[in-house]
Amino acid sequence: MLPLLVVHGGAGHIPSDRVQDSVLGVCAAVRAGYSFLTAGGSSVDAVVEAVANMEDNPRFNAGRGSVLTARGDVEMDALVMDGRDLSSGAVSAVKNIANPVQLARLVMDKTSHACLTAGGAAEFARQMGVQEVSTESLITDYSRARWKKNLDPGAKPVECQMGKMGTVGAVAVDAEGNIACATSTGGMLNKMEGRVGDTPCIGSGGYADNSVGAVSTTGHGEAIMKVVLARLILFHMEQGKSVEEASDLGLSHMRTRVGVWAGSSPWTPKGPGPHASRPIRWP
Amino acid sequence: MLPLLVVHGGAGHIPSDRVQDSVLGVCAAVRAGYSFLTAGGSSVDAVVEAVANMEDNPRFNAGRGSVLTARGDVEMDALVMDGRDLSSGAVSAVKNIANPVQLARLVMDKTSHACLTAGGAAEFARQMGVQEVSTESLITDYSRARWKKNLDPGAKPVECQMGKMGTVGAVAVDAEGNIACATSTGGMLNKMEGRVGDTPCIGSGGYADNSVGAVSTTGHGEAIMKVVLARLILFHMEQGKSVEEASDLGLSHMRTRVGVWAGSSPWTPKGPGPHASRPIRWP
Repeated sequence: MLPLLVVHGGAGHIPSDRVQDSVLGVCAAVRAGYSFLTAGGSSVDAVVEAVANMEDNPRFNAGRGSVLTARGDVEMDALVMDGRDLSSGAVSAVKNIANPVQLARLVMDKTSHACLTAGGAAEFARQMGVQEVSTESLITDYSRARWKKNLDPGAKPVECQMGKMGTVGAVAVDAEGNIACATSTGGMLNKMEGRVGDTPCIGSGGYADNSVGAVSTTGHGEAIMKVVLARLILFHMEQGKSVEEASDLGLSHMRTRVGVWAGSSPWTPKGPGPHASRPIRWP
Repeated sequence: MLPLLVVHGGAGHIPSDRVQDSVLGVCAAVRAGYSFLTAGGSSVDAVVEAVANMEDNPRFNAGRGSVLTARGDVEMDALVMDGRDLSSGAVSAVKNIANPVQLARLVMDKTSHACLTAGGAAEFARQMGVQEVSTESLITDYSRARWKKNLDPGAKPVECQMGKMGTVGAVAVDAEGNIACATSTGGMLNKMEGRVGDTPCIGSGGYADNSVGAVSTTGHGEAIMKVVLARLILFHMEQGKSVEEASDLGLSHMRTRVGVWAGSSPWTPKGPGPHASRPIRWP
C-alpha cells in the first residue's frame, strides 16, 4: 500500500508573523519522515524522524524552542507507539538532550519499560550514549521572552500559550500497513518543575493500533489527559464512526466535559484519509 | 444514596502464608475509608484514606513495603481522580514520603497541573509541608530479600512479582453520588530508576467519571498501559455493557493483544454492584 505520513506542528492560530516558518517547518518534517517510508522504512522510523526534525527546529515547542518552566529551565516529554503490538516508549521531564522522541524510542526498543522519567531517563540516555547538550542550546530568544512575560503575577500562561505554540506530532502507515504515532513537547509555558502533561501518557498524547488507526494530540495537556483524548477518538472509530465523526465526538466531549478545546491528527487505514480538527495548521 | 467503597490490595494469588494479613489489611483500609463516607465525607476523601491506609501497611506494594528498584531504592507512583469534573492528581517516581496518594491529591487540589514527577514532585511536597521520611523507613525485610533475589542475572522479576504483591487501589461513591478512584504503588520489582508504570497515567492506573463509573487497576503496568485498561473498561460500560461484561471485554482484549493478565475493580452507579476480575483477593 501507499505509505502515508501526517505531521502536526501544534494546535491553534499561529501569529501571522510566524506562519510561514511554521508551515515550512512542518513541510520539512514531512519530507524528512516520508523519505524513510519511500526507502522502505517503518512507520515508527518515519514518525520519529519527522518529530525529531521538528525538535531540531526552533519554531516549535519541542526540543530546541521548547517553552520554559517557571524556573527558566527546559523539561521535555515525548512518546512513540508502534501499532503492530501496542509497544510504546516515553520519557517525561527530561533535560539536556536534543531529541526526546529518539530517547522515547530507545525506551521502547531497549528496555522492558514503557516510560522513564527525569533523572532515571537521563541515566538511561547516558547508558545509551545519547549526547548531552546544554540547556542554553535548547532555549531561543522567543521562548525566553515569553517566559519573562509570564513571570508577572497577573500573567495567564495557559491563555498566552494556547494557539501560539503547541506540542508536535506525527502519525504514519508504512508500505506493510503498520501504523505508528509520535508526539513531543516542551510542555506548558511557565509550568512547575516536574510537571508531566499528556504527551508521554499513552492514550492521551497519542495512540496507535494497527487494527484501528493512530492519533497524535496537541493542546492543553491537563484537559487532554482528563478525557484520554487519543484513545477516546480511536474507541469511537472502533465503534464504526468515521475518522471525522470520531474526532469531532472526542473533541466535543472534551469541550463539554472539561471546557477546553484541543487538536488531534487521527488516521485510519480503513477511512478515506487523514482528518484534522480545524485549529491545526496543515502544510 | 448509600455510600459504597471498594478496595483492592493487588492482583494475583497471594502465597498462603501472607493471605491472612493481606485480607486484614484490606478490611482495615475499607473501614478507614468508609468512616469518611458515613461521616458525610466525599468519595475523594474515602479513596485517599483507604489507599493511604494500605500505604502505611507494610504488607502491600505501596508506600511502606514498596518493592525496590534495581539500585535498591524506593520510587512510588500514585493517582487520584474526582469523577465530578474529571480533575485528577498524580505523582510519579517520588521518594522519601510516606503517602504518595496524599501528595497526588495535593497536586489535584493545589496546582493547575495533573501530574508532577521526581524532583519537581519532591519540591512541591516540601512547599506543601509534607514530612520527609527516610528510604529505610519504607523498606521491609521482605522487599529487601526479594530485591536481592532478583539481582541474579537469571532472575525474572516480572514473573516473581506477578500474583504476589500488586498495586493497591480503591473506588468509591459518596452519599451525593459522586465517584472517585485512587491507586498507589511501589511499581515493578527491580525496575530501572525512573520507571513510570500505569498507576499515575490517567486512564491506565485508574479513571473516574460520575456519568459512567470508576476503575482502579493492578497488574503488569506496561501491559495495562498498552491498552489504557481503566478507560477501556469504562468505554464498554458507556456503550451499554454491564460492569462484568465491560471488565471481561477489557481484560480479554489485553490478554489477546498483549498476552498479559491483570486485575481491575470497576464500579458503576447504574449497575447491581462492584465487580472484580477473579485474580483479585477480596475482603
